[in-house]
Amino acid sequence: MLYSKNNVMIYEKLFTAIEQHVPLSEIEKNSIRSYSVVKKFRKHQYLLQEGNISYTENFVVKGCLRSYEVNEKGQEHVIQFSVEDWWAGDLLSFLTEQPSSYNIDCLEDTEVIQFTKTGLDRLYDEVPMVERYFRLLLQNAYIAASDRLLSTLSKSAVEKYDDFIKKYPHIEMRVTNKQIASYLGITPESLSRIRRQYVLLPNS
Amino acid sequence: MLYSKNNVMIYEKLFTAIEQHVPLSEIEKNSIRSYSVVKKFRKHQYLLQEGNISYTENFVVKGCLRSYEVNEKGQEHVIQFSVEDWWAGDLLSFLTEQPSSYNIDCLEDTEVIQFTKTGLDRLYDEVPMVERYFRLLLQNAYIAASDRLLSTLSKSAVEKYDDFIKKYPHIEMRVTNKQIASYLGITPESLSRIRRQYVLLPNS
Repeated sequence: MLYSKNNVMIYEKLFTAIEQHVPLSEIEKNSIRSYSVVKKFRKHQYLLQEGNISYTENFVVKGCLRSYEVNEKGQEHVIQFSVEDWWAGDLLSFLTEQPSSYNIDCLEDTEVIQFTKTGLDRLYDEVPMVERYFRLLLQNAYIAASDRLLSTLSKSAVEKYDDFIKKYPHIEMRVTNKQIASYLGITPESLSRIRRQYVLLPNS
Repeated sequence: MLYSKNNVMIYEKLFTAIEQHVPLSEIEKNSIRSYSVVKKFRKHQYLLQEGNISYTENFVVKGCLRSYEVNEKGQEHVIQFSVEDWWAGDLLSFLTEQPSSYNIDCLEDTEVIQFTKTGLDRLYDEVPMVERYFRLLLQNAYIAASDRLLSTLSKSAVEKYDDFIKKYPHIEMRVTNKQIASYLGITPESLSRIRRQYVLLPNS
């Protein structure tokens, strides 16, 4: 199969991310290429809308996505921002093929590498290192989710903001005040107040 | 190696749990046995105390454990209850060998099968099905943690209680009012009020 120069560079980003955790041979890289596609989205386009099934897991090559839910009162809650080297998608919907309750939209022009469930399951069989990579990735994701849960339950708004800055060090210029406030579960006004007073907390 | 009748039964519970996700041969089961130990705790004993390193991941054969954190104000936050067929431990501390900020105590007499990090890493190499099992387990754990985060951010106390009852269907008689309230992030008084009025919410 032939790849354009551009696609070669796109896949290099994925392979670099995977090789931070596990080694990959050229044959394994070819398998990964053959079970995925590159897709581009413009700013404001949706990767996933609620009620639809999340048919793909998406490695972010470029751009920034926001995963959020709208509750019955119409309030938005941002669950996650996904930037370069992160993954985006609704794992529950992806695994169960049930409609998603999430919306995932692009806050910037975005480029992703997409894997379907069938593709990923075949990859796990053909390239055990991919399965190991996802096990390691899921360990980290689970730890981060537990951490954020604890932070939501027990920390002050300032501490939550501090955790956010450490988790997403360069995202502040890429998303709006309102989106950050929604992620933190506070009002934009409280966020502005915190930001005026904010000094990075040491070593937490 | 010889196993007592009792230990054979204990391991059957682990194998049944694993075989709900992946198949295991007798040779693979022997590997799993050889990289783990059975350990018993009495009620009120600690599996892990904050400041210590979580050297083991623990499959719960019998009993009930509570994972909690105490914040700087001395407030307890219950992160998880672990009952039969669940796992207990602090994954972050286990992976990084850094001191844990969690306490895990036994609310009942408890029996677990313990794996060290070295043991588990060897098992991943020797028995790829164990790696697959953990990938699947971590997927579910990550989905559950994300779900609980969303519930904490956006749901009412009644809805949170309803989620709790569905997640832990038989635990109410095994843990105290105060421990459930701490898990939900509400006061014991609010919980009592909710319980008096509570009717299982349909289909959510």
